[in-house]
Amino acid sequence: MMKKISKILLSEKEMPRQWYNIAADMPNKPLPPLDPATRQPIKPEALAAVFPMELIKQEVTTERYIDIPDEVLELYKTYRPSPIFRAYNLEKALGTKSKIYYKYEGGNYSGSHKANTAIAQAYYNKKEGIKRITTETGAGQWGCAMSYACNYFGLELLVFMVKVSYNQKPGRKIMMNSYNARVIPSPSNLTDAGRKVLESNPDSPGSLGIAISEAMEIAVQDPYTKYALGSVLNHVILHQTIIGQEALIQMSKTDDYPDVVIGCLGGGSNFSGIAFPFLRENLVNGKKTRLLAVEPSSCPKLTKGKFMYDFGDSSGFTPLLPMYTLGHNYIPAKIHAGGLRYHGAGTLISQLKKDGLVEAKAKMQRECFEGAILFAKTEGILPAPESSYAIAGALDETRKADIEGTPKTILFNLSGHGHFDISAYEKYYENNLPDHEMTDEEIATAISGLDFPD
Amino acid sequence: MMKKISKILLSEKEMPRQWYNIAADMPNKPLPPLDPATRQPIKPEALAAVFPMELIKQEVTTERYIDIPDEVLELYKTYRPSPIFRAYNLEKALGTKSKIYYKYEGGNYSGSHKANTAIAQAYYNKKEGIKRITTETGAGQWGCAMSYACNYFGLELLVFMVKVSYNQKPGRKIMMNSYNARVIPSPSNLTDAGRKVLESNPDSPGSLGIAISEAMEIAVQDPYTKYALGSVLNHVILHQTIIGQEALIQMSKTDDYPDVVIGCLGGGSNFSGIAFPFLRENLVNGKKTRLLAVEPSSCPKLTKGKFMYDFGDSSGFTPLLPMYTLGHNYIPAKIHAGGLRYHGAGTLISQLKKDGLVEAKAKMQRECFEGAILFAKTEGILPAPESSYAIAGALDETRKADIEGTPKTILFNLSGHGHFDISAYEKYYENNLPDHEMTDEEIATAISGLDFPD
Repeated sequence: MMKKISKILLSEKEMPRQWYNIAADMPNKPLPPLDPATRQPIKPEALAAVFPMELIKQEVTTERYIDIPDEVLELYKTYRPSPIFRAYNLEKALGTKSKIYYKYEGGNYSGSHKANTAIAQAYYNKKEGIKRITTETGAGQWGCAMSYACNYFGLELLVFMVKVSYNQKPGRKIMMNSYNARVIPSPSNLTDAGRKVLESNPDSPGSLGIAISEAMEIAVQDPYTKYALGSVLNHVILHQTIIGQEALIQMSKTDDYPDVVIGCLGGGSNFSGIAFPFLRENLVNGKKTRLLAVEPSSCPKLTKGKFMYDFGDSSGFTPLLPMYTLGHNYIPAKIHAGGLRYHGAGTLISQLKKDGLVEAKAKMQRECFEGAILFAKTEGILPAPESSYAIAGALDETRKADIEGTPKTILFNLSGHGHFDISAYEKYYENNLPDHEMTDEEIATAISGLDFPD
Repeated sequence: MMKKISKILLSEKEMPRQWYNIAADMPNKPLPPLDPATRQPIKPEALAAVFPMELIKQEVTTERYIDIPDEVLELYKTYRPSPIFRAYNLEKALGTKSKIYYKYEGGNYSGSHKANTAIAQAYYNKKEGIKRITTETGAGQWGCAMSYACNYFGLELLVFMVKVSYNQKPGRKIMMNSYNARVIPSPSNLTDAGRKVLESNPDSPGSLGIAISEAMEIAVQDPYTKYALGSVLNHVILHQTIIGQEALIQMSKTDDYPDVVIGCLGGGSNFSGIAFPFLRENLVNGKKTRLLAVEPSSCPKLTKGKFMYDFGDSSGFTPLLPMYTLGHNYIPAKIHAGGLRYHGAGTLISQLKKDGLVEAKAKMQRECFEGAILFAKTEGILPAPESSYAIAGALDETRKADIEGTPKTILFNLSGHGHFDISAYEKYYENNLPDHEMTDEEIATAISGLDFPD
């Protein structure tokens, strides 16, 4: 018989009332976003056509802690604080001497961590009189999270869903519809950005970059419509720090402290959410936790991309952002972890990677699914394909520690469940899940011709 | 903006340590199961080929409270106590003056209440040296619950899945596979029972009754193999009373006490699980809570079936059980709430219905989906098709109370989430979800020729 499972819970009273802003403690502050026309730092007001003012303020602030509004806390309380589990059964199956903990963010209505920022973004938009939101979604976690949050606060939502995911995961579309959202496969004929892509490639699988262009194009046409992004940006990452803020308190209730904290990386929000509060402990309190982002080998911006200014979307609607990027026109391979198919990493995470304060590695999809299935068998929860990259990273760390004979304490973020991704598991069992690794030549091609200042 | 949501949580320390056995407090004890050959009460030992002794004892005991073993409690603690939510947003959408509470049992690895008995049954089998379990599953909730529980305790599992659900819900099969279980669509060619059905009807959609026959047939062939049932039986219902035991404590933390407690009904386990602890309060402490079971109009055993002795399975392997039944050969219409497609109600619930201590009503599938979608929009959680019958029952009670001008406190059991049932929602949106109502003629035909003593 397997050993007991331990769950570390917090009471509602122990839930953090503030988000944590890493910008306050970074040794090198992030470079400013630039106006593509002038190459000069963009003024916050220039973003007002796209985002409500409160989120723009959060995007640029260096205040260390930001109060979470009561209205947001109320909805957080329906699913937060989220549990941390000690993965006793996984440890036993591995025969490891290391300790593995995971924070589970899939226990809410949306099935992933995306609810944490969806609720906040919908709230601030509502508060400023906005009527309608446009957004993109990859695998659909963000779209589902935003659909319910918008419906809750009485906002309309239009979602551009990356076409390959729209076809792979029909369940997510229906769930968004159930929350009153309208869902369009991207690239679409609704926008100039989409039409341009379809003209050159009618079979385009789409990408998060294209879907962002489409959503932004619609948003800027109407003053009562704003755009919402599910990752990458500073304010999104800020909202996700509730994960790590809770985890710090939870770990303090054990005799352990993590040697390494791990998350999967698409734009960077779930990784940053769990990692940044621990990074602060490194920077301010002399802790030495390693912070490891795990990205797909098919979309390896942090491990093989170039740190430079690039657009956040494929059409060049956004300001130029300083980031590790594979080029804003790059269309990643159709892996099932749709949420990781993004060409760049957020500004904060990119600067921290450049400064050697966070680490990154890239993994192939099949090995990640193997880890996910071992995890499901032992711990019970079927992981989202995205989260499987964090699991694979944790398994690597466990093996390394066992080989070196130095057991570690490992904490990873299980960002979501895989109930809507079951077709990907089916393909794994059918041995029909190809691996993709972006070659150096592909990377050189993807980045060539981008001459932005770095 | 909508009103705040309230969540009523219990700490692990407050979790009940005992299951509650309604047999101890029933004014009329249930009639005994009969040996089909002799028509005499069956001896508990006769069940030993099918079930471990501890579960047989629980099946026949009249002890009021049964201690939950530590090993079961440990796994319960990974997801229990489960929350009760006050459905403020649903209330607001309805404009009702009534208060609606729901207990959410979908937050565990299996996505439904079935984990509560799966863990207990796997534990007792393992403790008695059993190596392998066979079982049936309808929509797959029970199969998934049992797959992980068996894997956790080191038991093999063979699942006969009702063919229509096997085809409607492929995700559930893959999830069971991920937990190491083998899944066979039923009727199958693996058993005499299955072959007999296929001979007379090669296109049979299957039924829970047929799947039970197949699973039992395999189990009795090997002393190290036992059979497990996901509903109907007394010991299954016993394990589910953890739901109502928790709910009693949770409601005591509010200023409210339920006027009516509602659950959907297939074999009776989730309804009985939440209702029986409240029924005890009626019987012993003078409370007057109505207990309402909601079943499908296509399978209306409690509202239109006959109270008599009948088999629990289609082939007549089981003892004769005193129950409201539509006849053990009845194959219900292919509604999406596969877990409710069972011809009979458990012995305990049948006796209580006969004695007027619980109520029942039947609902059509389309109206239930309408309720489920309203619930998802307002409360966020996408319900299992089965649970939508409980929601529809709660909405009826709300409307009635508003018409009568006497606001009520309503508590229902949201027995599971619908993440694997999204194709059913798709069919609803496509207006392709037929209603079925079993006619009096169909009922007369289904029951005719069954001449067991009643």
